Amino acid sequence: MSSDRFLTLLTDFGLQDNYVGVMKGVIACINPHLNIIDITQEIPPQNLDAANFCLMTAYPYFPSGTVHVAVIDPGVGTQRRAIAIELATGFLVGPDNGIFTGVLDHEKITAAVELTNAEYWLKPEASTTFHGRDIFAPVGAHLATGAPLLKLGIEIDPATLIHIDLPAFTETDAGITGYIQYIDRFGTLVTNIPGASVRDRQWSLTADGKDIPGCKTYGDTRLGSLLALEGSHGLIEIAVNGGSAQAELRTGYRSPVHVVIKQKI
Amino acid sequence: MSSDRFLTLLTDFGLQDNYVGVMKGVIACINPHLNIIDITQEIPPQNLDAANFCLMTAYPYFPSGTVHVAVIDPGVGTQRRAIAIELATGFLVGPDNGIFTGVLDHEKITAAVELTNAEYWLKPEASTTFHGRDIFAPVGAHLATGAPLLKLGIEIDPATLIHIDLPAFTETDAGITGYIQYIDRFGTLVTNIPGASVRDRQWSLTADGKDIPGCKTYGDTRLGSLLALEGSHGLIEIAVNGGSAQAELRTGYRSPVHVVIKQKI
Amino acid sequence: MSSDRFLTLLTDFGLQDNYVGVMKGVIACINPHLNIIDITQEIPPQNLDAANFCLMTAYPYFPSGTVHVAVIDPGVGTQRRAIAIELATGFLVGPDNGIFTGVLDHEKITAAVELTNAEYWLKPEASTTFHGRDIFAPVGAHLATGAPLLKLGIEIDPATLIHIDLPAFTETDAGITGYIQYIDRFGTLVTNIPGASVRDRQWSLTADGKDIPGCKTYGDTRLGSLLALEGSHGLIEIAVNGGSAQAELRTGYRSPVHVVIKQKI
Repeated sequence: MSSDRFLTLLTDFGLQDNYVGVMKGVIACINPHLNIIDITQEIPPQNLDAANFCLMTAYPYFPSGTVHVAVIDPGVGTQRRAIAIELATGFLVGPDNGIFTGVLDHEKITAAVELTNAEYWLKPEASTTFHGRDIFAPVGAHLATGAPLLKLGIEIDPATLIHIDLPAFTETDAGITGYIQYIDRFGTLVTNIPGASVRDRQWSLTADGKDIPGCKTYGDTRLGSLLALEGSHGLIEIAVNGGSAQAELRTGYRSPVHVVIKQKI
Repeated sequence: MSSDRFLTLLTDFGLQDNYVGVMKGVIACINPHLNIIDITQEIPPQNLDAANFCLMTAYPYFPSGTVHVAVIDPGVGTQRRAIAIELATGFLVGPDNGIFTGVLDHEKITAAVELTNAEYWLKPEASTTFHGRDIFAPVGAHLATGAPLLKLGIEIDPATLIHIDLPAFTETDAGITGYIQYIDRFGTLVTNIPGASVRDRQWSLTADGKDIPGCKTYGDTRLGSLLALEGSHGLIEIAVNGGSAQAELRTGYRSPVHVVIKQKI
Repeated sequence: MSSDRFLTLLTDFGLQDNYVGVMKGVIACINPHLNIIDITQEIPPQNLDAANFCLMTAYPYFPSGTVHVAVIDPGVGTQRRAIAIELATGFLVGPDNGIFTGVLDHEKITAAVELTNAEYWLKPEASTTFHGRDIFAPVGAHLATGAPLLKLGIEIDPATLIHIDLPAFTETDAGITGYIQYIDRFGTLVTNIPGASVRDRQWSLTADGKDIPGCKTYGDTRLGSLLALEGSHGLIEIAVNGGSAQAELRTGYRSPVHVVIKQKI
């Protein structure tokens, strides 16, 4: 019988090696009927900001009850905790290093556990380098199959979960100051400033000392021009029509940007 | 219950970001039993020629009734139409920008609609930048689930569909002139000249001023040599045995090539 | 009805073109209920050592009965045999060029056939360039659906199967000499020396004239430092904490490495 249960994978393992394929094999051995979806396996190595953003912005689009396994894990083999979290609308499984910060900012936690019960692992002795295969994939598969969260280990206080320290945007009379929280394949720079801040207004954005016009769509500028607009995440983005904003600006993750509201249209 | 219905995705979104994963989440919410197959998500950004070729040459290999969602969409947010097409053997969903030209050259159209019925979208207000998530993925999922094409929007005249203006190959006494219509990962240059033109003949090909021998298999030349042969698409290709023809020749999409038939063997 | 049968794909076709998507379409036409898992499609072009390693190390993690289709096929179109092998715990399908060497070193062969029965192919006439689509994917789909191995072609003597000539590691009083058998996305160099050789000992490793400390985990060294440790495959690996060992050392596939046991801890 096929299942309605979904499990997603988000890692920095890439698709060149067999790491992700092996995780899927481990899941298939536990429950061959689970539906596995790749959110992405191409997070830049160890980039927790990018991972956090990709999971936060993908989470709302998945069916209720989906188990999200996320493994960007620079601390594998150290004392960092392996955790699983039950939310009102789904489950999170991965290292306790802040990777779930953005999801947890928007969702209510039902319970959280440290993954100490090796009965739900691939084998009692996990490797020191590949908890994706040895702990997170099998625990995710058991959760998606219906294992109760509290069986997976010791319950922990949600207040003790590690969060990434991400600055908020700040709004003053002079405008809104935020930062770049994600850079995509097209070199588009996604800020943390909500598009709602500029809707129905005339505005521009400053980044790397350059003044960039606030637009509605790509069609508002010429090919090759920098523009700022509300992107598909509902956030202000900096892009180049037919090019890469990342290549045009000396900016990176957490670089500051500043939005100036010129006037209400 | 599992389904026999297939939905394919072909985009230039890449696998680095969460765009494709989000589209799959949207599809899973509408029908968790659909089978999703990636044709490719790595079309070079906004390269309609490559997208058109990849869809045209993949289409015949999928089960009857498959829904193909294709999103290479430089005009997103402008007035270009969003469309769905029912063919005798499957369905097409995507922007009306010529991406389906090659498939439509080979298949009979049953009906076509402009996607104006927002009941089949993710939400009534689509973003201006990500119709893959907001319109094409949900419409594709509904189609694959059995929604009638004509419910998705206003019927349109197939004669009004946009086509890419691709030159044909021309045959004269002096040979056959065609062009490069696709470049693959290995740097193989795929022309638009059918392999049937040269079967059982002695022939050679000229590209970038170089004379390249017509061969049967890679084994007919030494490692590192340029060769021309009938490839897996049934078209003449230019390749380097163990190397990249793209790196050897100053050619690109739509560069001309010329085949000379020397004699019948 | 959904199936419990799994089919994996491992190729060097990459994800940029439609080759892998087309293979999945071919499989779906034969049996829409098979579960397809990508081990990887990003083997470096024609690198049989990498393919052999990725399949060998992934094989044990898949459900019993899984059909593994592996296509790294520099000899396509020549006289090399197309084969299928039944093992106690699964099936292998691909070219007879040594790609299965590592799996066959660990698993017992039940029977092997040369794929001569075109009834199980996509069509009676296979192309000379894409046996993945024309022979291996359809044969794999039929095997996973229950076709008996011996119907697929002529039985062959397992002793005639091609093996890659991979050197073994050698152990002397002066230490253990091995070689690099795989390089992953992170630039980690995986040797063929078992981690068990150094467990509970003080040791170091020499590669490219450099002395590299033997460690337990990444946390044992500073960011940017070379280290050697037992990796997730149970083999000794050379890595850089937060970097790429491949970029630091002039080594490649089959480069020698030497382990010195300093003393028992």
